[in-house]
Parts: sequence; structure tokens; C-alpha cells
Amino acid sequence: MIDDLRVRLGDRLSTAAAVLDEHGRDEGWHPAATPDAVVFPDSTAEVVEVVRACAARGVPVVPFGAGTSLEGNVTPLRGGVTIDLTRMGRILEVNVDDLDCRVEAGVTRNTLNRALAREGLFFPIDPGADATLGGMAATRASGTNAVRYGTMKDNVLGLTAVLADGSVVHTGTRARKSSAGYDLTRLLVGSEGTLGVITEVSLRLYGIPEVIGGAVCSFASLAGAVRTVIEAIQLGVPVARLELLDDVQVEACNRFSGLSLPVAPLLLVEFHGSAITVADHAAAFEGIAAAHGGSGWEWTTDAAERERLWAARHQAYYAGKALRPGALAIPTDVCVPISRLAECIVETRADIDRSGLVAPIVGHVGDGNFHVVVLFDPAAPSEVEAAHTFNARLIARAQAMGGTCTGEHGVGYGKLEFMAGEHDPATLRMMAAVKRALDPDGILNPGKVVPALDG
Amino acid sequence: MIDDLRVRLGDRLSTAAAVLDEHGRDEGWHPAATPDAVVFPDSTAEVVEVVRACAARGVPVVPFGAGTSLEGNVTPLRGGVTIDLTRMGRILEVNVDDLDCRVEAGVTRNTLNRALAREGLFFPIDPGADATLGGMAATRASGTNAVRYGTMKDNVLGLTAVLADGSVVHTGTRARKSSAGYDLTRLLVGSEGTLGVITEVSLRLYGIPEVIGGAVCSFASLAGAVRTVIEAIQLGVPVARLELLDDVQVEACNRFSGLSLPVAPLLLVEFHGSAITVADHAAAFEGIAAAHGGSGWEWTTDAAERERLWAARHQAYYAGKALRPGALAIPTDVCVPISRLAECIVETRADIDRSGLVAPIVGHVGDGNFHVVVLFDPAAPSEVEAAHTFNARLIARAQAMGGTCTGEHGVGYGKLEFMAGEHDPATLRMMAAVKRALDPDGILNPGKVVPALDG
Repeated sequence: MIDDLRVRLGDRLSTAAAVLDEHGRDEGWHPAATPDAVVFPDSTAEVVEVVRACAARGVPVVPFGAGTSLEGNVTPLRGGVTIDLTRMGRILEVNVDDLDCRVEAGVTRNTLNRALAREGLFFPIDPGADATLGGMAATRASGTNAVRYGTMKDNVLGLTAVLADGSVVHTGTRARKSSAGYDLTRLLVGSEGTLGVITEVSLRLYGIPEVIGGAVCSFASLAGAVRTVIEAIQLGVPVARLELLDDVQVEACNRFSGLSLPVAPLLLVEFHGSAITVADHAAAFEGIAAAHGGSGWEWTTDAAERERLWAARHQAYYAGKALRPGALAIPTDVCVPISRLAECIVETRADIDRSGLVAPIVGHVGDGNFHVVVLFDPAAPSEVEAAHTFNARLIARAQAMGGTCTGEHGVGYGKLEFMAGEHDPATLRMMAAVKRALDPDGILNPGKVVPALDG
Repeated sequence: MIDDLRVRLGDRLSTAAAVLDEHGRDEGWHPAATPDAVVFPDSTAEVVEVVRACAARGVPVVPFGAGTSLEGNVTPLRGGVTIDLTRMGRILEVNVDDLDCRVEAGVTRNTLNRALAREGLFFPIDPGADATLGGMAATRASGTNAVRYGTMKDNVLGLTAVLADGSVVHTGTRARKSSAGYDLTRLLVGSEGTLGVITEVSLRLYGIPEVIGGAVCSFASLAGAVRTVIEAIQLGVPVARLELLDDVQVEACNRFSGLSLPVAPLLLVEFHGSAITVADHAAAFEGIAAAHGGSGWEWTTDAAERERLWAARHQAYYAGKALRPGALAIPTDVCVPISRLAECIVETRADIDRSGLVAPIVGHVGDGNFHVVVLFDPAAPSEVEAAHTFNARLIARAQAMGGTCTGEHGVGYGKLEFMAGEHDPATLRMMAAVKRALDPDGILNPGKVVPALDG
């Protein structure tokens, strides 16, 4: 079969060890597994050919974008063919008047935003990494802007996907809303390549705000910082980004980026709007922060100054990892109802301290979503054990509060064992029924998202 | 079977002719069909019993809320058991701190909003009728507030549903976002009872705005009014509602509600926010309107005065119908990309005028969604023919512009014939595959949403 595909694709099919290795893992800590071949299609039609060839022989198919996932989402657990979509990098349409665009799955968000900037537009979903938009749709990504702009679920208007039988579906319309049938767009968003290979996405765009205001504020306690967040959200102060770094993370950022922030919990906040509205919202936020022990409020609408204030956040993940060079990191991803956020973060910080782990906290707290970057030495069994049991405790804590094991990273195979703690058996059976209906032979990204039922 | 259920449900099962008739049709113009029995369960457990009894014998099951749908969505085309959910009217939880709530499917939006007002909260989705929240979820309803708050797809956080096999699923979590598996919530939202019977919904809530500003403005031309809408949306002026009445509709409102508005296209707009931001946004809108021939701008933040300005809109549907007492009405529901809205509305108005139909236009134009209320005498074959061919032309026009045959009313059986003009065969096959997987015997609201394939 590989020979057949090579005839068709030429050097856009590779079985070179380096290429296979590169497509065997993502940026997470989960063990790798290599595909038997990697193909680099140029078009939806070529993806159809690859999927049909694989389907005819029951060979697994794994879609691959920038490889920046964190839960082994792209790891080909059962080998087969990895479809690398990065050659499908064309921006097909930008409709300024409709504030939407259509792009091939391999376009990255930074590439798109550079093109959009010329039109005064931007695509707000920002998971940190320069992920592909197809990959972001597949994992239902979100990130720092989600508190205002939502997640990929809210911003993918439609998509083109190749199903397991090689048929091509086009979901959604160009209208802003529709009640015409099942919401296949949102069924595919977050399905991580297990229901179809996404080859094009239509996205909602936004005008670049007239004014962007950025601010930072330190807090005497973690609880005070989180209570500020909760109150701002509950009062409806329209923040665009709202990020928390705990004291461990702030210290890591000071070292990594040469900053001199007070080593204390830090909130970073951003407002989008007109000069009048941004100033109005910032003043409201400042008042709430002051009531909860906030100090050192700094605020600007100047772009360079805002970059300076926000520098700590931009490098947070790498700064955290640099606390222990050579260590692996479990980037946890729980999300809880905002009413439980203070309790969840404070308990989690205490849990970290008891466990002796090095684990800074950084979070998109406006959504109730926060990451603990749990650093561990993979060669030290006791550390591995401590990191894993901490992760399991954190997830159980969040789920007990009505939250989720993953706010934005997806299930991949790393979170598979936690699905049963979140969804009851009938709900998991419903997911499995949908999977079976659309991929009866289980060739699409096998071993991901939906746990095997009945053992 | 009916006798068995009667033993269980007592007088909460009815086969009285009046009750069957009442559950045989909705508020639309499509022919009725009566169920064999209507049941009024009190709980999800009772819905399970009814569905299991029906499943065992292959008897159709049709969920029914307030009966305010418009496309025959609740009409039991093949008889069977209608499940009237209005006794499931409990508000189960209101979580002020999380801005969410959980209600039984039979709670209506007005009932919910009365309860929420005490907490300073509201649920914004407003389809006009006092529909049940289960029904609104099932049809993916939206309405006047959607331009700011989205549709039911954006505001249902999770739900409880009884599937065709009697199993009970709970979708979503209480966290604001999650990437933990397939988005079953949004698969069920808009499925119109064909995939499961929704028995509970969790909803996103909002703080009642500090200030609500309302304004009206008349226009010399329909095109000027629509261009004002387009520019306001494109510039990101954050309107909460943005409604258009054409001159025919304005005249109908003048007669019906004793108003004295200039007989000309009218825009009604509403802004939600603080006093400062509302005034800022209203001024921006006024400037855009003036540039497109707007006149008679009136604006207020006083509640009673706002009611007066908006009176025309609130009674628009009944005012339109009163233009021809005794006539039936086809309430069309196309939605197009905003860039095509002026063209679509102007062509449609010309089409109406050529056809000799009486058909006012009223629309949620901020979304690109508008309704033509096509009045026809069901006893006059030529009028019936003219109304139907106009409706088909309008839908074809919208679909050719990348739009949809239904922005918010759903498919029911009235829009079934238009699905193939909107979705390609592979996409319809994907919908059918999902339907078959979850309801293999086709007992759930048969004959709706998904057209029969291959003839």
C-alpha cells in the first residue's frame, strides 16, 4: 500500500526514520509511537486518496498539524499512516465584510494573523503555541482570549473533513447561524481526528480593537487574586484576557526573563474596546482588585509598554520548565466552575507543597481553567509516582467540583483514563456509538478520546 | 401498551380527542397529525419508562413543549406517543456565582426570567414566543438578542436526555469549557427530538445590564437601513438587539398597535452596558445611521420610554398577520452572510411586490436573519401556489448566497425538502449515520430533520 501511495505522492510520502520519529510524539510527556509512513498531501482530494487506501486495508490514519498537542493526541499508537497537513497552508478566502475566512487545515494561527492584520482583523484564539488551525479545531483549543472570545467551538463556523470511508463533508454555511440539521461542525470540533480528517476550516474573525489596555496587579495571597477574578467575572467586567501566575511561577519568570516582579501571586488583565470603554472597564477592575488586597497596579494602553507588563505571561511555560532543566512536565488542564476556583487553586497549591513537587501554576482563570506545570525527573521513580498521583488527585478534585479533566488540551490518550470520572457510562456509550457509526473499522486515530468500553 | 402506561401514569396519560388535537400541530401552517396518546411525565425516570415502552414496540415518540414551533417540528407524523414535558417545570438550581442554572425541560423562558430577576440575572435568548427551554434547545432557537448573546448553541452548557434505548445521558460539565470528548451537548441542541428527549438543560446566565439603551431610526430606503446594519456589525459596534421592520410591517404595526411611525423602513436597536459605554455605542450607531439616510433618531435609557419606542417590534408578528384576518402565514426564516444581506432583502422585497403577495418583512438583521411573513388564503389555490413558490425562491436565493433555509426555526418537516439545497449528499449521509446509530429503529420524532436518502 505504501508503494502504491508513493507512486501517487512521490517524495511527499516519507518512511525516513527522522520523519517517522518527528511524527511519533507531540510536545507533551507521553511515550511516543511511530507511524509506518508520513504523507504530506496538497489537497483534500489527496487526503481522500490516502484515507481510501488506508480504509481498504484497515490501516490506521492519524492527522498531524504543528505537533504542539500535549496529551499524545497525534501519537500513532497503532502505527499506520500519519497525514501531515502542513503543506495545506493556503488562506483560501478572507471576507472582510462578513468577518470570516476559510483556510486550509495547515495554516498556523500566527500566519493567519499576519495576513489578517493588513485588513485590520484578527483571529483571537491563542493557545500559546503557533498551532495549525486544523489542529486547534480538532482539539477544541482555547487559551488566553477565551474569556471574551470563546473557544474553537465558538469560532469555527464550518469545516471540510474527510470521513473514514473517504467521503468529504462540508459542514455549516456562511450564515452566522442556522437551525438546518445536526451540528456536525461542533461534532467534529474536539473530535481529535477520530471522526474525520479536517482539511479546511471557516473561522469567525474580529476587528482589531481600537484600543487594547493591559494591566498587572500583585496580591498578598493566592485567594485574594482568585477572588478578584471571580468578582470581576460575576460583575460582568468585560475582560479580554485574565491570567494568573502564582508566586512560584512569578519567581520562575523573574529568573527566566530577567524581570523583577514582586514574588507574589500576579494577575494580568487585558481589555479590548474604545478608549472610553477600556478606561471604564480597567477602573472597575482596579477597584475590585484593591478590595481584595491587590497592589502595584500598573496599567497602559501603549503597545510596547503592554508587552513589557505581559512579558512574564508570554514566557511562562518555558520559564516554568527551566526551573528544572531536563525534567519532564505534566501540564495539567483542569477547569472548574468559577465559584469553586478559589477553593480548587488553594487546595491544589497546598497539595503541591505537601507533595514536595516543583510545580508552578499559571492559568486562564477567567474561565476557571488553570495549568499546574508538574516537573519531574523521569529517571526517578518516586518523582514519577508523585507527579502522577498528584495529577490524578487534581483531576478528581476538579471533577468532584463539577469541573473537567481538560479545559483545552483534549483527551488524546493521556486523559483517557479520566473520562469515566467525568462522564457516566451511558454518555460514554453515546460517544462510542457515534464513533462506531462514522468509523466502523476504527481506522481514524485509534486509541484516542473515547475509552474502550466493557474493558 | 397504552393501557400499561395508563396504569403507571393514571390521568397523566390522555387519549381525549381535544388533547390529541392540541398536540397534533404547532403555531405554523403545516398540516396536523394526531398522536395516539399524550403523556405528561413528572420526571426523567418517567420519560425513560415511556421511551422504553415505546421502544419495545417500535412506537414513535414525539417530545412536545409549548407547541410554539413553526415548521411542524412537534407534529406526530406517524402517530405514537407525544411526551408533553410541561409538567417538568422545576427550576432545579440557580448558581448566581457561576452565572448558570439547571432547569427541567418544561420551564418556559418567561418563567425562568421572572425567577432570575430576583437575583439580578437574566437568560437572553428570546424567540418571541414564551417557549419552553427544552423546546428552544431542541430547535436551536435564537431571536432578537442573538447578535450579542448568541443562540441556544452558545448558551446551553449541558443537558440531560433520554435516548431511544431508554438510557439517560448527562452532557457537559459545570465548567465553562471542556475538551473532554465529543460535544454531545451541541449534537443534541438542534436535533429536534430526533436523537433524544431532552429532559433538563443547564443554561448560561447574564447579569441584567446596568443600563439598557433603546433607539429607533427611520430610513428613506430599505437599502440604507440594511447598509447601516452591515456597517455597524462590521465596525464592531456592540449592539444587543438590532431589528428591521420594512415599510409594510411598519404600516401594519401602526394599525395594529395604534402607533404613528413614519411609513418607512425602521431600525430598532438596543445597547447593554454601563451608562458610559451605552452612550458611547449609541452615538457611534447614530453616526452610521445618519450617513445612510437615517432620520428621526430617538434614543432613551428609560425603561418605559424604551418600551414605547420598541412597541412596534413586540407586536410585529401579530400585526403582520392582522393585515389579512383569516389568512395563513408562512414565516420564512432565511439567514445570509451579512455582506449579502442588502442584496437579499432588496431582491426579496422586489420579488414580493412582483408576486402580488401581502408579506411584511421583519428581521434580526444583525445576524443576517430575516422573516418574511407571507400571508395567503388557504382556500385560494393561486395564492397557495404563489406563497409556496415565493418561499422556495427565497430559500434558493439565500442558499445561493451561502446562507441557510432556517436561521432559527429548525427543519421540522416543513423545511425537509430544502435540506438537499444546503448540504451535499455526503453531509446528509453523515447526519443520517448519526441518526441511525442513536435511533436504529427510527422511533424518535420520525420524518423530521434528516431527509430520507436514496428516495
